[in-house]
Amino acid sequence: MRSINDTIAVETQEKQRLLDLTSCVKQKVGASGIQNGVVGLYSQHTTAAVFISECQAALSHDIMEFFTDAVSDQYPYRHNSPEFSDCDRKNAASHLRALLLGQSVLIPVVEGKPVLGQFQSVMFAEFDGPRRRALHLQILGD
Amino acid sequence: MRSINDTIAVETQEKQRLLDLTSCVKQKVGASGIQNGVVGLYSQHTTAAVFISECQAALSHDIMEFFTDAVSDQYPYRHNSPEFSDCDRKNAASHLRALLLGQSVLIPVVEGKPVLGQFQSVMFAEFDGPRRRALHLQILGD
Amino acid sequence: MRSINDTIAVETQEKQRLLDLTSCVKQKVGASGIQNGVVGLYSQHTTAAVFISECQAALSHDIMEFFTDAVSDQYPYRHNSPEFSDCDRKNAASHLRALLLGQSVLIPVVEGKPVLGQFQSVMFAEFDGPRRRALHLQILGD
Repeated sequence: MRSINDTIAVETQEKQRLLDLTSCVKQKVGASGIQNGVVGLYSQHTTAAVFISECQAALSHDIMEFFTDAVSDQYPYRHNSPEFSDCDRKNAASHLRALLLGQSVLIPVVEGKPVLGQFQSVMFAEFDGPRRRALHLQILGD
Repeated sequence: MRSINDTIAVETQEKQRLLDLTSCVKQKVGASGIQNGVVGLYSQHTTAAVFISECQAALSHDIMEFFTDAVSDQYPYRHNSPEFSDCDRKNAASHLRALLLGQSVLIPVVEGKPVLGQFQSVMFAEFDGPRRRALHLQILGD
Repeated sequence: MRSINDTIAVETQEKQRLLDLTSCVKQKVGASGIQNGVVGLYSQHTTAAVFISECQAALSHDIMEFFTDAVSDQYPYRHNSPEFSDCDRKNAASHLRALLLGQSVLIPVVEGKPVLGQFQSVMFAEFDGPRRRALHLQILGD
């Protein structure tokens, strides 16, 4: 079994932003030469998410609006209080949104390609930008 | 390392429905002959979920009711609006419910069996039925 | 490819509790001698969660408060009703909180170490304690 490790760099200019990483993941799987196994994409950050969804502008808007509503920015989070936390960024809501969406995906690789469905894209969600992020990509297989 | 890929077909008659796939997953792991590794079940769809839970009628009812309440059908989603989306199905809520529950599970295989706990079942949730779905099953190991 | 299977035992005295398992996971990966592969931690329980987050007392408080608010204990769950369920523990909310957070994590192992980010810890959340739990740890690789 081979294990190939790589990085996908992403950069955002906004506080919250969705990016489609599908073509980048597919390209790296193809270049690896691995025919059968799995590809994993892991955020090494706690205020960003990696997940699978349909990539459509209207739906992406709905997803970000849903998680913004589901996790209020206004709640008196201890993580945002100088009394309890020395974190400079008041980003408790960003942490909670990332927890709800998840921080990694694992996709089977068959005949050299990730088996994504017709409407599935590999998505990255920034919840505490603007930031530069490095995502760990791993391809395991033969 | 061997990589075995298979499909589990599911079909629902209702808009929303939970199905227990545990016996099917266990049977396919047993038939594979793989003794040590992992088994993954992946939905290749964006409005259905795969997850692990206790399979009990009362709890299944609660799970579906919780996600139906947590993600309103009535919200003015852009994905459901002809102004923003050409999607025929007004299924933004189905996407969001699937995102919250997750679309894949990975379970260690030890001595030829998935190491599910006493009360754990592999569950499928349809959020946009009635539909026929194909789930990708992968067993990796030796 | 080698497959190493182990258990992490956790014990809580409270109904709900977060525990940091990072040092234990790192120690077991180091002791395995596996240089490249993945490490997975799987809860075999349906009312506890395993996930990745920043381990900070203020944020841990916020996380538990968020999930306690998001999933009401007071809702008339069927799983908690003697009419529909023979479950002794009225723990429907515990199930739902575990489903939202997730029950397993998988982390790439590179050069003998899990590739956790600077602020990432492997966390366990008990939602139906006090309990003793056994978590399945699996390291796959070479």
